Amino acid sequence: MLVHKITEVREKVKEWKRAGLSVGLVPTMGALHNGHKSLIEKSVEKCDRTVVSVFVNPIQFCAGEDLDKYPRTLEADEKLCTEAGVDIVFAPSPAEMYGEGHILSNDFLTYVIPPYFYTDKLCGKSRIGHFDGVCTVVNKLFNIVQPDFAFFGEKDRQQLIILKKMVNDLNIPVEIIPCPIVREESGLALSSRNKYLSDADKQEALALSKILFNIKNCYKKGITDVRSLGETAYAFLNENHSLEYLEFRDENNLEEKTTADDGTVVFIAVKINGVRLIDNISLR
Amino acid sequence: MLVHKITEVREKVKEWKRAGLSVGLVPTMGALHNGHKSLIEKSVEKCDRTVVSVFVNPIQFCAGEDLDKYPRTLEADEKLCTEAGVDIVFAPSPAEMYGEGHILSNDFLTYVIPPYFYTDKLCGKSRIGHFDGVCTVVNKLFNIVQPDFAFFGEKDRQQLIILKKMVNDLNIPVEIIPCPIVREESGLALSSRNKYLSDADKQEALALSKILFNIKNCYKKGITDVRSLGETAYAFLNENHSLEYLEFRDENNLEEKTTADDGTVVFIAVKINGVRLIDNISLR
Repeated sequence: MLVHKITEVREKVKEWKRAGLSVGLVPTMGALHNGHKSLIEKSVEKCDRTVVSVFVNPIQFCAGEDLDKYPRTLEADEKLCTEAGVDIVFAPSPAEMYGEGHILSNDFLTYVIPPYFYTDKLCGKSRIGHFDGVCTVVNKLFNIVQPDFAFFGEKDRQQLIILKKMVNDLNIPVEIIPCPIVREESGLALSSRNKYLSDADKQEALALSKILFNIKNCYKKGITDVRSLGETAYAFLNENHSLEYLEFRDENNLEEKTTADDGTVVFIAVKINGVRLIDNISLR
Repeated sequence: MLVHKITEVREKVKEWKRAGLSVGLVPTMGALHNGHKSLIEKSVEKCDRTVVSVFVNPIQFCAGEDLDKYPRTLEADEKLCTEAGVDIVFAPSPAEMYGEGHILSNDFLTYVIPPYFYTDKLCGKSRIGHFDGVCTVVNKLFNIVQPDFAFFGEKDRQQLIILKKMVNDLNIPVEIIPCPIVREESGLALSSRNKYLSDADKQEALALSKILFNIKNCYKKGITDVRSLGETAYAFLNENHSLEYLEFRDENNLEEKTTADDGTVVFIAVKINGVRLIDNISLR
């Protein structure tokens, strides 16, 4: 069922809760692919009822980012959801979420701000305010849907770690369920932004997963020095890759690692032909 | 019933909700007086169950403020609550709320930040970060108790307006119930900080309510020019009063008024012998 209004979702969820049913939420920006599908399936399996939100959240896009051209495919998204057994697809307008003519700056809007220690690194370094926008909209969605469980992909692992921190710090009564990255056979991590890639770009994009898999291999073989592990990346990079970061960080608090261990996650971001791609891998 | 643990409150509230009972929350910093009592009575009357939280919230005190010497009277508070029919007095430790050894800066803690337009004026001007701390702790309490209604005094009207804005912006499923200021017969608004006043100070403190009542009188007689209304204050001030602000602002969004109307609130803050007192009045 496609729902656009907050009050309508709330009523439906209230009914479910009165009946003692558990509720899962899968927050998305639409343009659903098999990565989202795996989150949705996990929710449908775990929870009595599942809500998928489809909302391209303006306040998590930074100046110069792709808000206007971000892919919007609601009809296909709804079909995927229905087939997967989703009970409600919640697709609010920006006005429904933030009010008509609302000024979306922190001069006039309440924000949920994750700690700087978690946001001043990795993607947060180039995407100023991005995670403030993510935490704020997820907080809103949690308050609207009041789910028991919420499903997030490990593809956006910095986001996942930050949202877990938010839930913990603010005592939010929602359990966050992390879901593993879904990859093409080639190794490429699924992403809505892959649509921006030409076939040639896609070929170049394989470098990200190759670098990560190779680092994990080296780690499993006993190399733990982060500098040595990092240097193995250069074998996979060429002039078509603009490396934004390759970093080794703690899986819980994003602290930098100099020696890799099982609690280490390797994060990578590369721009290919103007398209920014991210990926990561746990060394566990 | 006195409860110190988050899990314990949650269990209790869950039971109530399962039984279909409505829940009211009265968030306080303790040192309860008749002002709080009026909030508590309103909740007990309106809701099936009432939780009063007693927590001197460290993150809403600014540098140089009275965190350590803020009055703590838990035993008396509990007695007042029990007699008023409160079901749970929730008095967590700072560690229970923020974690053991937690660093309470926005480097390491998720904050709920109300819009600058609401916090860069009145009390927010001198109490930097105060309302960030208030919104964050109230958000946490809302998530812990999940009340249907929450009761706040109009005494802290800037806080009330900011919390309403937070609830609206973040779609928090709680209805905020404003409660009128309770005054001594003399006109002095009740406040936990009145305990810091000597008898002579208390006499001087009457200036605040006198100024506000007189302004409202003048307005009712037809004076709407804010400058003229403001100037009437000087008749009540002497060298023992250090006036921090006297301002005319919109009751919903705190916009400054040059012409008073029924939607105007007059805010005043005065320091007397080092004790900072606030008061306000609606011209409606």
